[in-house]
Formats: sequence, C-alpha cells, structure tokens
Amino acid sequence: MPTFEEKLSDYKHQIVEHIGKAIGKETPVSLYEPIKYTMQGGGKRLRPVLLLLAVEALNGDVQAAMPAAVAVELLHNFTLVHDDIMDNDATRRGRATVHEKWDTSVALLAGDGLVALAYQNLLNTRSPHTLRISKLFTSALIDLCEGQALDREFETRSDVSMDEYLDMIRKKTARLLSLCAQMGAILADGTEDQIQALKVYGESLGMAFQIQDDLLDITADPKKLGKDFGSDIRQKKKTFLLVHALHHANARQKQQLLNYLNHEPVQDAEVLHIRDLFNEIGTLQEAVSAVKQYLTLAEDSLNPIEKVHAKTDCLKDLLQLVQGRQA
Amino acid sequence: MPTFEEKLSDYKHQIVEHIGKAIGKETPVSLYEPIKYTMQGGGKRLRPVLLLLAVEALNGDVQAAMPAAVAVELLHNFTLVHDDIMDNDATRRGRATVHEKWDTSVALLAGDGLVALAYQNLLNTRSPHTLRISKLFTSALIDLCEGQALDREFETRSDVSMDEYLDMIRKKTARLLSLCAQMGAILADGTEDQIQALKVYGESLGMAFQIQDDLLDITADPKKLGKDFGSDIRQKKKTFLLVHALHHANARQKQQLLNYLNHEPVQDAEVLHIRDLFNEIGTLQEAVSAVKQYLTLAEDSLNPIEKVHAKTDCLKDLLQLVQGRQA
Repeated sequence: MPTFEEKLSDYKHQIVEHIGKAIGKETPVSLYEPIKYTMQGGGKRLRPVLLLLAVEALNGDVQAAMPAAVAVELLHNFTLVHDDIMDNDATRRGRATVHEKWDTSVALLAGDGLVALAYQNLLNTRSPHTLRISKLFTSALIDLCEGQALDREFETRSDVSMDEYLDMIRKKTARLLSLCAQMGAILADGTEDQIQALKVYGESLGMAFQIQDDLLDITADPKKLGKDFGSDIRQKKKTFLLVHALHHANARQKQQLLNYLNHEPVQDAEVLHIRDLFNEIGTLQEAVSAVKQYLTLAEDSLNPIEKVHAKTDCLKDLLQLVQGRQA
Repeated sequence: MPTFEEKLSDYKHQIVEHIGKAIGKETPVSLYEPIKYTMQGGGKRLRPVLLLLAVEALNGDVQAAMPAAVAVELLHNFTLVHDDIMDNDATRRGRATVHEKWDTSVALLAGDGLVALAYQNLLNTRSPHTLRISKLFTSALIDLCEGQALDREFETRSDVSMDEYLDMIRKKTARLLSLCAQMGAILADGTEDQIQALKVYGESLGMAFQIQDDLLDITADPKKLGKDFGSDIRQKKKTFLLVHALHHANARQKQQLLNYLNHEPVQDAEVLHIRDLFNEIGTLQEAVSAVKQYLTLAEDSLNPIEKVHAKTDCLKDLLQLVQGRQA
C-alpha cells in the first residue's frame, strides 16, 4: 500500500510522461519550443492530480482519465503564459517567463497552442461522458477569462468589496479546481450527488488555495516562491489582503494604504511597510483563518459521499498538503 | 426563388443575429466590450456562409448547423485579434484594431474569450456528429497556430520556397475554409466521399483566397481594403508575390529585393517600387493565374458529388464571388 506522498509522486510522473507524449511535434520551432519549455517548468501538477484522485475516490478508471488530466494541466499553463504577459511578470517557477525568454508574440501564440492541445487531449478522452466534460471545460474557460478580466479591472479600483474579490477568485482560480474534481467524478460514472459534492470540494479547495497564494506573496521565502517577492503589492493587485485591509483600516492606516495605491512605482521598502500595515490591521490573521474555513468546507463536502463507499482518504490528505504548503 | 446574392445576404443577417445572441453577457466590461466590438466589425462572414452552403448542398438542416457556423466565425475573429497584436496592425476593416483601441492585454484576453465562446457554440450544436466536428475544429485550430508561427518565422528568412509558402497558407488560411465545408458536409449527414469532396473544395477556395489577399495588399483601392496599403510589404511578409519574385528575379532585380529585405523601415515610395518589380518579374500575372488554378480545382472537386444529387450551384456561385472580389 503506497503512502499518499508516493501516490502523488507516481501520479505526477505519469502526468508529466503523458504531457510529453501530448506535445509530440518539434516544428514549427517557434510554436513548440516555448510550449515544451512551459510544460517542462515543473510545478505541483495539482489540477491533474486532483482530477485523478477524484476518479480514484469513486473507483473509476484512472488510466482512462489521463487525457482529461493532461488537458486541465495544459489549460492551466495556457492561463499562466497569457497572464504573465498581461501582468508583465519576468519570472515563474524560478525561470524566465515565455514572453521574457522569447517575446510577447511568441508567448501569445504558445498560449493559443496550449488551449488547442488541451482540447485535443480532452476530446480524445475515451468515455461516454466526453461531450459533457468538454462543455464543462469550456464553461470553466469562460470563467477563467472573466476572472482574469475582473482581476485586471480591480487593479485601477480602490473600492473593491470582499464579495467582488471572492467572486473574482472563484472564477479565476477555484473554478478550474472544481472543474477537475467534477470531471473526475463524471468520468468515474459518479452519481449526480457525488459529482456535486466533489465540485464543492474542488471549489472550496480552490478558494483556500488562492487566499493562501495571496498570503504567500508576502510571507513565503522568495527562493521557494519562484517569483518576485511582493509582486502582488507592486502591481496593486486587489488580493484578499488589500481588500480586507482597506475595509478594516482605521483613518490613519487607510490614508497610508490610499497613498500607496495612488503613487508609483512601489519600492522594496514600501512592500515591507504594506506588510506591516496588513499585520497591524489584523489582515494576515484573517487570511489564515479564511484559508482554514475553506479547507474545512472542502472536508465537510466529502461527508455525504463517504457514506456510500467513496474512498475520500486521499482527498483529505490533499487538503492537509495544501494547508501546509510553503510556496 | 431567391438569387444567390439574396441568399448570401439572408444567411449573413441570420449569422450576425445568432452571433449577437451568442455574446449575451455585458460584464466584465473589459472582456465583453472588445469582443462585441470585434464581432460587430462587419466582414464578409465567408466562413459561416460557406458552412451553411455546404449543409444546404447536401440537403441538411441549415438551422441546426447555425451554432457551428457561429463557432467558426468566432474562431476566425479570435485569429484576427491575436494576429493583429503580433503584426502590430493598427486598422482592420477600416476601424482601429482591438489592441489599438484598448491595449494589448485587453486584446489578448478578448481573443481568449472568443476561443472559449467558439467552443461553447460548437459543443452546443445538436447533432450526433458534435464530437467529430469538435475534434476537426480543434485540429484546425492547431493548424492555425502552426500556420501563424510559420508566417512569423518566414519574416526573418529570405530563402522561403514556394512549397513552404503554400504549406504555410494551407494551415493559416485554407484549413479554416476546408473545415467549414467539411463540418457542413458532416452535419448534413454526407457520405465520406461527399465530406472529402467538400473538404478539397474548401481548401482550394482557401488557397485561392489567400493568394488573392496577397495580391490585393498592393492592387486594391486602400479605401475598400480597410487596412494599410502595402502592409505585407512593409512587414516583409513572405507572400506569394515576394516568394515568387525572389525565385524568378534576374540578378539586378534580386539585388533590389534583397536590399529592401535588409533595410528598414520601408517608405511609401519603396512599396510602389517593389510593386513595380513584382510586375516586371511577372509575379503579379503569376499570382492571378494561381488564383484561377485553385478556383478551378475547387470547382472540379464538386464534379463527383454532383452526380449524386448534391446541389452545388451556390458553391459555384461562391467561387465566382471570390474571384471577383475587390478587397
């Protein structure tokens, strides 16, 4: 009986191997080289792993679900490549981003190619449910675009409410994770109740994951983070932290936050000052607590399906893993 | 009995109406406003019209094919929005391009949204063949990306062969038109022979269309063209004209062409000089002849299916229309 870590590592290796096969072509070089570079950039492969764990939890055929797992990882990487262009981020996972290593046009086209390859793998999933999961996949892609649009619109606003923020990350981050869990359940011939439960599990996990990401931007060890420290603060992103702080600051703190929002560029010292402000306002503690709440929600969503012989141990282990992540 | 022009106009109106319904959302504004702007930009709607004419030729249900027709038009406009970013084109159909009117990020995301909406419509096509046409659609999207990558790679090369050029436009332009004709035939429950015949028809039409596009870049009335006159020459695009001229120029002409390729930026006077060179080398006449050859190929491809009661009159009328276009 393999441990959870061994299982994860095994799935991750299988996914990486299948991704390699999914990008078999070499030419045109200007299209496939940046695509390979992106897909070989490492990462946790959280999304395809989640899909496979959902299949397994409902006793489905994990190997048959592999093309769908590859598809969600390709789609996720498409969003990273295009988001990095829009955010003008120079590093990702400790390496130069595609538009930085090549140029914007190459990155733009590589992203488009990743979407195409994602659909190619998805539609080749051998299952009576292929059309259904493809429609879900597409609705998630629309949500991803809407979430990214909202994220960018929020950059120039200082009055973003917590509800607006939560709606944005639900689309931009949580939707893809709920899609993975949902697709896994559907491919495993789950009942509608099981599919719905796993959808809620994935979404709650995704909400926790994004708020944690917001936190790690200023609390993680930059070496482990693989991207610029305080990058969200520099870009004035409306993260959980900033939105919470703006709504809970006293008059003096609020003035300091507005000053920061209305001036640019942001210096290193200012990043640290904003972090101190977040701490003072109680925002960091609140974010930690929100992460825990969403993880509890995810765990609770599994209760009804446990009674009908679903094997939810690994899905619970995954929550533990996410809770403890350092980058 | 409506004339061909009346039929085209009717189809075009129906397509525009269905596109409007396909983009029902208003927010996020930064996503849907540029998408609506793009789709309301006019254009010939050649691709969806071709799809509907193919359905009709094989006595299929034209209304049932409408979502697929909308999907190909959305996909085509996605390529325009992203290509305009890469080519840095400021105008399209006589209006500012999306990245010019907003910015690169908005155009990038609007293009991504158009792909998502294309798949949403495609997958909602009610037909037993939806999965099959979705796989074809995806393989065409991959070809579109590869064709665009080749087009860009060719910009920095002066040794592009005619075969390489033809392979590039087959992917970048002809593939989408062959997809339309093929999808129409499949949706109309055509036989494999009919599907293959219409695929060849669409591909040949597409090859003719692109070579004609290359010609119109320097022969059309700029007011009708809706984009910059000589834009291909300014960008040193390896068009039919340039590739042919480089291979058929005498020593003096070749030197002049290489001089133009190795210096920038290109002035208005130089565009006219290059056009004169193309004329002198016999390139313009050769392009006109290539267009005619591909249109004949398209017409001939219909012969075998005419014998089995396909109504090919409109498909032939479409060839006439393409042959006579001015912009």
